[in-house]
Amino acid sequence: MKTMATFPAGVATSGRAACRSMVHEPNADMLLSSDFVSNKGFASRVDGAAVSGRTRRRAAVTKCTAEPLVEKTIYSTSVRRNTNLTKFQAPYFFPEISRRMAAHQRKHPESKLISLGIGDTSEPIPEVIARAMEQRAHGLSTLKGYTGYGSEQGPKELREGLVKAFYSDLGIDKDEIFISDGAKCDVIRLQLLFGPDVTMAAQDPSYPAYVDTSVLVGQTQGYYPDTQQYGKIVYMKCLPENNFFPDLSKMPRTDTIFFCSPNNPTGATATRKQLEELVAFAKKNGSIIIYDSAYAIYMSDDHPKSIYEIPGAREVAIETSSFSKVAGFTGVRLGWTVVPAELRFQDGSPVIKDFNRVLCTTFNGASNISQAGGLACVSSEGLEAIHKMVGFYKENTRILKETFDSLGFETYGGQNAPYVWIRFPGSQSSWNIFDEILEKADIVTTPGRGFGPGGEGFIRASAFAHREDIIEATQRLKSLYGGKSN
Amino acid sequence: MKTMATFPAGVATSGRAACRSMVHEPNADMLLSSDFVSNKGFASRVDGAAVSGRTRRRAAVTKCTAEPLVEKTIYSTSVRRNTNLTKFQAPYFFPEISRRMAAHQRKHPESKLISLGIGDTSEPIPEVIARAMEQRAHGLSTLKGYTGYGSEQGPKELREGLVKAFYSDLGIDKDEIFISDGAKCDVIRLQLLFGPDVTMAAQDPSYPAYVDTSVLVGQTQGYYPDTQQYGKIVYMKCLPENNFFPDLSKMPRTDTIFFCSPNNPTGATATRKQLEELVAFAKKNGSIIIYDSAYAIYMSDDHPKSIYEIPGAREVAIETSSFSKVAGFTGVRLGWTVVPAELRFQDGSPVIKDFNRVLCTTFNGASNISQAGGLACVSSEGLEAIHKMVGFYKENTRILKETFDSLGFETYGGQNAPYVWIRFPGSQSSWNIFDEILEKADIVTTPGRGFGPGGEGFIRASAFAHREDIIEATQRLKSLYGGKSN
Repeated sequence: MKTMATFPAGVATSGRAACRSMVHEPNADMLLSSDFVSNKGFASRVDGAAVSGRTRRRAAVTKCTAEPLVEKTIYSTSVRRNTNLTKFQAPYFFPEISRRMAAHQRKHPESKLISLGIGDTSEPIPEVIARAMEQRAHGLSTLKGYTGYGSEQGPKELREGLVKAFYSDLGIDKDEIFISDGAKCDVIRLQLLFGPDVTMAAQDPSYPAYVDTSVLVGQTQGYYPDTQQYGKIVYMKCLPENNFFPDLSKMPRTDTIFFCSPNNPTGATATRKQLEELVAFAKKNGSIIIYDSAYAIYMSDDHPKSIYEIPGAREVAIETSSFSKVAGFTGVRLGWTVVPAELRFQDGSPVIKDFNRVLCTTFNGASNISQAGGLACVSSEGLEAIHKMVGFYKENTRILKETFDSLGFETYGGQNAPYVWIRFPGSQSSWNIFDEILEKADIVTTPGRGFGPGGEGFIRASAFAHREDIIEATQRLKSLYGGKSN
Repeated sequence: MKTMATFPAGVATSGRAACRSMVHEPNADMLLSSDFVSNKGFASRVDGAAVSGRTRRRAAVTKCTAEPLVEKTIYSTSVRRNTNLTKFQAPYFFPEISRRMAAHQRKHPESKLISLGIGDTSEPIPEVIARAMEQRAHGLSTLKGYTGYGSEQGPKELREGLVKAFYSDLGIDKDEIFISDGAKCDVIRLQLLFGPDVTMAAQDPSYPAYVDTSVLVGQTQGYYPDTQQYGKIVYMKCLPENNFFPDLSKMPRTDTIFFCSPNNPTGATATRKQLEELVAFAKKNGSIIIYDSAYAIYMSDDHPKSIYEIPGAREVAIETSSFSKVAGFTGVRLGWTVVPAELRFQDGSPVIKDFNRVLCTTFNGASNISQAGGLACVSSEGLEAIHKMVGFYKENTRILKETFDSLGFETYGGQNAPYVWIRFPGSQSSWNIFDEILEKADIVTTPGRGFGPGGEGFIRASAFAHREDIIEATQRLKSLYGGKSN
């Protein structure tokens, strides 16, 4: 019954080398591509045995030997591969982090790696919030506390709580808020809302999910190696040279504009004036802004925390956000998206109605236990605990930024965001910088290139780590770069 | 800042009636369309105040008066509505259930409605499973127990547990299993995997999410009112007349074939021989079967519980399943999808690799707390508790089926599924039947038409209810239909 042959039909192979490239690597790629899009340094952190386990299994099935292999053909269906998926250039970035990390670990098995790489929260969830989830989980085992399907939009109480906690006086109604299992999941639902025919713009650098989901739903042309861009996407360069804000007077119109502030990875925060310009630009062009405020809680100054602080934004902007970096919910999964009732398509029909249709077609609500946690987050006790945790990470960022500053680096972000964005001198590629820090300091960072071509020459250091690891990392960085005349 | 006008640009309206149709109804639709796709009888069950609250709010904003209204224009963006979304015929089905239900409740405020409508579990989650979630939630508040992002594919232990519990001896490897937040969410991810250019077939009747997600990603043409079908989809009629299995010799080739067994809504279970035919048909045509086994645990006889019991299925079938009806996880959200390594696209490339890419681009894993519950489900203690609960629902189904049988109705399913599929005599529409049962017995069912044109003339009765409600419902049904000579 089970086909043992494992080579694509029509591919002639011989010897061990061919076996490796045909069988082992596709599986390694598969795992590693996961890292690319999930914005992780290494998937193996959580699910450690996956790579080796997978490799072992495939090896067993394919019976690799040193003798020349006869061509093996296996059955293929007649279903054509989705052309959108063929455009992906995934294996070029994050998987390479995993490969280099794994190689480093093999080479230095005793080294204690510190990860400032992925934006993954490290501190326990505040007790008041975890307790609410415990109680909800317990309640599900009782006749009184059990509930099944909730509404896809999320419970009224949580939507009301979000309004009170984050949108008071901004004119957002609870019925304009849709609870989700996280911003990444909402990004694909938003792309499904707009469909394949729209044009889009994204900050460069930015969170790779914006561009990747655009590719997936068919909004883009192929990848152009010379520009390192996907065709049809407008990349809004955000560099120190333009104060991380695009020159809108030179920007072509697009249907959608993805904009994240505080930005991941640069940590740059748009000013009120910049966001007013952005809203005016969208309004002039009839564009829709998808505003990602996942890091808004990290802002200490009076920069806008929501796009809806800008007059007129209700007519041109959707906002998506998340509890991930707010309350350490990266694994718990909870987020939300705001679609104002005033936002209309060209034909005058409300965007909120179509978004609701997409949500209901593709989603059955976030976990009721996570939602109970979210409700605790927006309570006064929860918000207090959250701000304390955010303060902890902000202190981490301060320490990291100060360290890189003291070493003479050009640093950005780190003030209103959990990320420090570090420019390296000369024309070093971000991969070379990554390699050097990994090799010489056993520290995992994220090469800027992974966030778009505009990230080249930078690395991102994340503040999501225990304090002792942050301190240890700064000491290693000082040893590594202290003698340099940066 | 906030635009108060609420009418689409260019729409001239006058008087209260116009106000209602322009403002109230779109909002009502919005909520109600949620019901259609989520396969629910009524969203308001959980989030009771939503409809009226929403209506109140919009009414307040629009200031409806009896005087003729001047035309109001509001700003519209220049973004065109996604043509895929314009194809939806949603407001014609499930929203109508909510409207009729709400009307019934207004008319008979003292009536005690019993819902046999939506497939929503009613019984508490077994303690051993809830306890695991409690403990995981508590662990998240501790330094030792805290984890952030998990791998998108889900933890190894859970994938191993699923193999052991449901796929032992079927040749499925843990690395071919992808943990999700439920089958509905996986269905859209599978559609994103295949993209807009494939052709698909679905059982008629079947769970509306298959067809709806196909429409959403652009696989279909428009809706044809005469056939009540979306163009380009092949509807596989599954009626008592063909033993709920299509005549494959007359079926055209499609790229994908969605097949659910035990079927929702008919409760029909495909035999081994039928599934062998289906696999052979797919293999001959180079099609890919998407096999939904969400109700497999309800099977008592030796019909295949997984498509992988059929030799050759690994080369032509994906299987998607869920903990929803297995462990009462409708609100907890946990499911999985199996993509065998042997499954290949036309070019020989592995489907699993592309599915992993889609998953990682659009998803960040199911909630870690839900996953802890899943792990408890596949423990021996958990499985025992699950089978007990499934047994409870099966007894409900037996009672319901026996009742309809005793009343002389033609009934189907109800043996290996939590649904009874009841044909009504004459040429009554399923909506008329629904209305009669609601009006005369205060019982909510689901009109078969909602599952496709092939459901016309049937209603579905769900076994997901407390025993006392099932008993009460049977008494009411006997009063209603006992005197008839069915």
